[in-house]
Order: sequence, then C-alpha cells, then structure tokens
Amino acid sequence: MDNRPIGLLDSGVGGLTVARELLRQLPNEEIVYIGDTRRAPYGPRSSEQIIEFTWDMVNFLLSKNVKMIVMACNTATAAALTEVKEKLDIPVIGVILAGATSAIQKTKDKKIGVIATQASIRSGEYQRTINFKSSSIEVTSLACPKFVPIVESNEMHSDIAKRVVSETLAPLVGKVDTLILGCTHYPLLRSLIQETMGEQVRLIDSGAETVRDISVLLNYFLLNSEERQKCQHRFYTTAGVDSFREIAEKWLKLEPLHIEHAEIESFNKEK
Amino acid sequence: MDNRPIGLLDSGVGGLTVARELLRQLPNEEIVYIGDTRRAPYGPRSSEQIIEFTWDMVNFLLSKNVKMIVMACNTATAAALTEVKEKLDIPVIGVILAGATSAIQKTKDKKIGVIATQASIRSGEYQRTINFKSSSIEVTSLACPKFVPIVESNEMHSDIAKRVVSETLAPLVGKVDTLILGCTHYPLLRSLIQETMGEQVRLIDSGAETVRDISVLLNYFLLNSEERQKCQHRFYTTAGVDSFREIAEKWLKLEPLHIEHAEIESFNKEK
Repeated sequence: MDNRPIGLLDSGVGGLTVARELLRQLPNEEIVYIGDTRRAPYGPRSSEQIIEFTWDMVNFLLSKNVKMIVMACNTATAAALTEVKEKLDIPVIGVILAGATSAIQKTKDKKIGVIATQASIRSGEYQRTINFKSSSIEVTSLACPKFVPIVESNEMHSDIAKRVVSETLAPLVGKVDTLILGCTHYPLLRSLIQETMGEQVRLIDSGAETVRDISVLLNYFLLNSEERQKCQHRFYTTAGVDSFREIAEKWLKLEPLHIEHAEIESFNKEK
Repeated sequence: MDNRPIGLLDSGVGGLTVARELLRQLPNEEIVYIGDTRRAPYGPRSSEQIIEFTWDMVNFLLSKNVKMIVMACNTATAAALTEVKEKLDIPVIGVILAGATSAIQKTKDKKIGVIATQASIRSGEYQRTINFKSSSIEVTSLACPKFVPIVESNEMHSDIAKRVVSETLAPLVGKVDTLILGCTHYPLLRSLIQETMGEQVRLIDSGAETVRDISVLLNYFLLNSEERQKCQHRFYTTAGVDSFREIAEKWLKLEPLHIEHAEIESFNKEK
C-alpha cells in the first residue's frame, strides 16, 4: 500500500482524458498532473526535442514524489518511453501498448486504423506494436496535425472543428472497423470522430485502456492507495491557468480544481 | 518476448480450469502443468504441509524452465504465495487477488460470498484481501470440504454431486449477490452451484479473472510469446494418468494431451 500520488504528463490538456479515467476507475488514487501547454503541440517537433521536453516533465513529477509515472501522451510515449523507463526506478507506463492490445482484441476484419500526431505516426510505434503481436493485421495510419491545436484552443465544439475532423478522416472512412484514438487529446473530439467514421466503427480510447492496465499493475505491485476521504489532486500547466481550468473543470466535472502554473525547464538539469 | 512456458500448479485437476482460460485468452502461450493428484485434497491439511507440497511443485516447474508460475490453486495461494513469491526471481501469481478484485467491482449490495476449501477459509485470505480494498463489504465465507473429492473422483455429474452442492450451499442462499468460486476445482461444478444459488447471483471464477490479469502482466514485462504454429503443452500428475486424462481432455477439449506421471518429492531438496 502506497499513498503517494500517481504522476501524469502530457504536452497540454490531452492527458486530462486519462486523468478522468483514473478518477473514475481508481477513485482512491491521488493525481499530480503536468501539462506542457506553453510548448504544445509536440506533434510537429523532432524526436530529440520531444525527449528533452518529456524529461523536463518527468523530473518535475519526480520532485512531487510520485509512485508511478503515466505518460498520458502518445507523442511522448512513442519518443521517450523506452529511455525514461530504463532510467527510472518507479514504474513508467505509456499509452500505446494498452490501446494496441485492445484494438487487436476488438477488430473483426483485421483492419485497424490509427490516428495520431505527426511525430507518433512517423515513429511507427503503433504499427510495430500491433504487428509484433499479430502480423496478419492491416494497420492504416493517419497523422492529424490539426486536431491538437483545436483542442488546446478549446474549439472542440466549433464549426471549424467539425469540418477539420471530417476532411482529415475522409481517407479512412470505410477502410477500417476499429480506430485507435492514438493521441490523448482526441477523446475530446470523440463525437465528431464517431460521426465521421460511422457508428459501426469501434473507437479505442488509448487512455481509458491504459488506466484499466494500471489498475492491474497497482494491484500486483502493492502500489494501491488506502481508502480515504479526500484526494488532493494537483494540476500544473506551463502556460496560463485560466484556459487550462476552463477545459479541465468541464472535462473532469470536478471543481474547484487545484491548478498552478509551473516552470519545468529547470528540472532538466537533474536528468 | 519470451517463449518459455508458463507453469501452473494445483493439488489436482482443479487448475485445469485456469489452464482452459489460459489456452483461450493467451493461445500463443505454452503450458506446463503439475497436479499433485496423489496428495489431493490439500484443503484438510495443515498450512505447513501445504507449503511443503507447494514447494515440491514449484521446484518441479522450475526444473522445466518456466518464465512465470501461476498457483492455480486457492489453497496453495493462501498458504504459500507470499513465501514463494519472495524467494523466486520469476513472477509468481496467485488466484485470490484477481477474484477478490472482480467481486468488489461486481457486487451491488456489498455482500460477497466466498466458497473454498477448509484451509483457504481458515487462512482468511479472501476476507482480508476484500476488506483491505473495501472495508464496507460484508464477506460471508463457507468451507465446502466435499466439493474437491467429488471433482477429483470425476463425479461432477452424479446425483450425489447435486445433493452435496445443494445441501452445502444452503446457508448462503439469499444472503449474497456475488459468490467467489474460491477454489479452482469449483468451476467444474459451476452449473450445479448456479442452480442452487439462483440465476441472479454472479459467480466469480477466480481462475478466469487471474488469466485476465496475467495477460496484462505479460504485456508490460515483455514476457509474451511470439505467434507460433503449435504449442507443446505438457501436463503432469503425481498419481495415475488415466483418470487425469479423462477429466483433462473433456474439460480442455484438446486431445490427445501430453500427460505424464511425475515424482515431485525429490525436487523439495532444492528449496
């Protein structure tokens, strides 16, 4: 039994979709969240830069005494999971493995689509993970560079969002029976994505699947928290607090949230 | 990726219910199974003796180069898991944690029943595990000493079985909404148990729940096997092969099975 918080990191607000699942599935666990909103989106950046920024967040979370780090960001997972996992003594969980595994279990026609940021698609991590486990599955990958900026600017319900989603996903429509939302920002666009792809396509939320795995891992490694009355969740952003708060309180349906501005670059030296 | 087999141990044929789930949920994994049929049932034995016999099986499995040991036996799990886990370098998984966790998630009235062997009930492991996670749940435990002998003698479909199940479970009927089959032999009596308890009671198969957890653990610790054409599963029993074969082939719906007699006591010295 370990009452230290679980650390979550993301390039911005996308990891809140993972935080919401954590709050729902593991209500006794306390969360410390860092969103690098100031430097989002990560998708167009080089993998060297993504690794560097991810270390800034990891070291910030370590300074908060977390018992486990969840890379609640597919782009960071694709670029930095292997390296960070190797160097840390606490468990580090990415969001690619669980979504890939769930999609393999759910596809009937063996045709899986993956939508993600440019950097995630370029890394080939989803395709590699899926085909390592099941070589006969056809994976169609599509980068959606416009999705994260829409979410980070809180434009999810605009007409622009609707048009961008429908135009971007057009090449996938009718081609897959299962679609991995391979970026934790995308569940915030879920209804538009479902509408475009059609009701028959199963959408896989990589964050929700990851939290299911986390609950098993906590169980076996005695990392569960005790039952308790009140968790003091803390959310940090590297940019302004207001816009982060607007999205976070709406999405998490929790208020008031403890949200603070954080400078994280200084933590890089500890790497 | 690790192609070594997964080792399963049980006092007799009960662990075959876990083996069946493994074959179904993880078809690429090879199994080595040891059933200590000659010394079954374990339920009436002292915890010292159960620990000694469990070590015989553990050491036998280690000699077969397994990558993980599943104590597919609640009685062995209750008595020996902590000790064996501590001394081994490979993962050792019991069958109590997964069933307890699943029952907590499924009960609506917060009334969980546990049926198991005398030794398991005496250990209090289920009650402790459930109440550690959720102190407000009422746990009613019942030892069913006659169930394992019925299964080991392949009398599951007899009139005696029907009468014994109904008489034994009478004190629980109407008292719980969720019932943990806290012995891996009991899924072989599942339809009789369901009939006695009523259709509205959820039965939790501790073995099936454990295999679901194993698939997550294999995933995160890179212990999965590659896809392959044919697994050479091996089943060993400390008593005669014929009666074991009769139950195993029927339950696993696989034949011909590779079943051998094994002497396991000599392995104890390696402890």
